[in-house]
Amino acid sequence: MKTVKEGEVRKKEILVAARKLFIKKGYDQTSVNDILKIVDIAKGTFYYYFASKEEVLKAIILDIVEEGIRKAEKIVKDQTISVLNRIILSIKAQSPEFEAEELKEELHRVENAKLEQLYLKTMLKRMTPVLNELVLEGIEQGIFHTEYPRECTECLLLLGHMMFDCNVFQWKTEDFPHKIQAFLNNVERILGTKQGVSKYFSRSMSTT
Amino acid sequence: MKTVKEGEVRKKEILVAARKLFIKKGYDQTSVNDILKIVDIAKGTFYYYFASKEEVLKAIILDIVEEGIRKAEKIVKDQTISVLNRIILSIKAQSPEFEAEELKEELHRVENAKLEQLYLKTMLKRMTPVLNELVLEGIEQGIFHTEYPRECTECLLLLGHMMFDCNVFQWKTEDFPHKIQAFLNNVERILGTKQGVSKYFSRSMSTT
Repeated sequence: MKTVKEGEVRKKEILVAARKLFIKKGYDQTSVNDILKIVDIAKGTFYYYFASKEEVLKAIILDIVEEGIRKAEKIVKDQTISVLNRIILSIKAQSPEFEAEELKEELHRVENAKLEQLYLKTMLKRMTPVLNELVLEGIEQGIFHTEYPRECTECLLLLGHMMFDCNVFQWKTEDFPHKIQAFLNNVERILGTKQGVSKYFSRSMSTT
Repeated sequence: MKTVKEGEVRKKEILVAARKLFIKKGYDQTSVNDILKIVDIAKGTFYYYFASKEEVLKAIILDIVEEGIRKAEKIVKDQTISVLNRIILSIKAQSPEFEAEELKEELHRVENAKLEQLYLKTMLKRMTPVLNELVLEGIEQGIFHTEYPRECTECLLLLGHMMFDCNVFQWKTEDFPHKIQAFLNNVERILGTKQGVSKYFSRSMSTT
């Protein structure tokens, strides 16, 4: 009889194998059979844990988002950092950076637009309440001024992700320092806070 | 012997048929053979005009973007409208509205994330210089204040599209008036212009 722990281990094995395959072959090009071969399980065992390949994808994306959330939650609580800088660091933290950028690149390949869309919606849903705490903290402190705290949060998360993780504008590498500076300027404007405070951040953001 | 005009007509026929099929069946589910059957042409004729199904898709998306551009260019030139309102109307104009919303809905179905990504990148590339003219006009008039005109333009186009055309936040219908008001507020902040001027716009935007 399988214990709960064994079940969790098996599920994790499937997720790890599928993630590697999605990166290597692309999501559309990976079949459930490809996953079965690597984990060495029967089809029935796979379908005991996941209803479909898409369910595996959703679980992987949720894992990636949760990883970002954990990083952001640590930053949110760090009272040694100013509230504005915690916001900027939290936006950076939700960027999926692990696995040597490979999964991130995979997310942005045209063939995997579906993965990217799913990631974006999941990330926005989970990150909005986390970042919103900081916006409210800044308003409480009298540093930020806006009638639309939640919408500011949504706006900043969306811009940070689309501009710097997806690079929808296809900016050249040499344009990034200026683009980051402009972004930080807009972050300050949207939050209704003093201009120029986040300036020193642009160098550190463009070199990481 | 085919004339240039005949060639253009044939090309147009392929595009019209493909667009209908992409809407009805989805892009991935439509084959080149499906298109051939409707236009009633041989495979060779199809490949004379387009290298692949993806080339047809790109041509269709380019057509949609150009339609938005033409609408926006008319607005940009209309000196009877204030520069801020021309910016807001231009952002609205790039939203693909024709064909009874069907193609727009199709663009946003998960299965067609590829179409949406292609549309977004093409639209941003073509619309940025058009909208940027207005931002520069506003700066010239002393109404807008920003050191980053091009980045403001990019930011506004991206926000408008992602928030209201893609609805990445999955807002409910009843939330839209407030979301639009918040967006207009942020547009004013990003452009560094007087607050509250675009307020009367929110009602008209939410009812169209």
